Amino acid sequence: MAVAIRTATEADIPQILAFIRALAAYERAPRAVKATEADLLRDGFGPRPFFECLIADCDGQPAGFAFYFFDYSTWMGRPGIYLEDLFVDPGVRGHGIGKALLQRVAAIALEKGCARLKWEVLDWNTPAIDFYRAMGAEFMDEWRTVRLAGDALARLAGPTRQMESAS
Amino acid sequence: MAVAIRTATEADIPQILAFIRALAAYERAPRAVKATEADLLRDGFGPRPFFECLIADCDGQPAGFAFYFFDYSTWMGRPGIYLEDLFVDPGVRGHGIGKALLQRVAAIALEKGCARLKWEVLDWNTPAIDFYRAMGAEFMDEWRTVRLAGDALARLAGPTRQMESAS
Repeated sequence: MAVAIRTATEADIPQILAFIRALAAYERAPRAVKATEADLLRDGFGPRPFFECLIADCDGQPAGFAFYFFDYSTWMGRPGIYLEDLFVDPGVRGHGIGKALLQRVAAIALEKGCARLKWEVLDWNTPAIDFYRAMGAEFMDEWRTVRLAGDALARLAGPTRQMESAS
Repeated sequence: MAVAIRTATEADIPQILAFIRALAAYERAPRAVKATEADLLRDGFGPRPFFECLIADCDGQPAGFAFYFFDYSTWMGRPGIYLEDLFVDPGVRGHGIGKALLQRVAAIALEKGCARLKWEVLDWNTPAIDFYRAMGAEFMDEWRTVRLAGDALARLAGPTRQMESAS
């Protein structure tokens, strides 16, 4: 089995969206994906890219992806990489493809002078948790992630913004 | 008390670093801040800014800041704002300065077409947790944040990278 990691191009967008959907299904949220191919084209391949993406080809066929962007550590005074999605097709797991994707992301982080890699894992996903722990990752369990979206976000932004967001 | 929110400039860098240090002390990690003024200048005000920053002036004096960057939701197919730091000087708390900073960040999020605001809070910081809950924020407690840094990051990146990072 020959595995090659490469940077995604616009031509990979349908495949990227298929991976995003497959990962959401694994995360027990199969209907959560609202993203479209047009969204990914605009936000990843336009003048202001919000993310970068790697594809793992296995014997010439896309078999997994790593989807990431740059965050920032005010304590370190350095950017970091935030790994939003990492996924390998169930049929080809156990061949080191996920590890190869993570290794490439780590290499990019060091090339760019990043202080760290960060990501999130569901608390019931013990195979992934064990895999990350063996790698030397720390779990930041003292921190709770907070999210504000939809109506609550519009309410906070104020009455004017609320009308704009509703239009 | 007159409060005004404005975008930070290079001239604010010493003040931003002072806020970062004051927040770290509040978070019980007073020695965690390695960032320098040169780091913040390079990463926030160069050709590829990794973050944006707002300053709250209170009667013409800097009294707090919001430090954020853009992340991305693969489920929504939209960028989001990740609020890395939010801080108000203890001497002027209780006057709505933190709320005013958050409101401006929320307004920027809607202007930029973002799906959500995200941030982290320490699990013992109940005043902040109550404040965020009242605002309609959700706590993503099913997700654990994972971090890989230092030697573990270099090890993952591979032997070549390890040597480079040590040099």
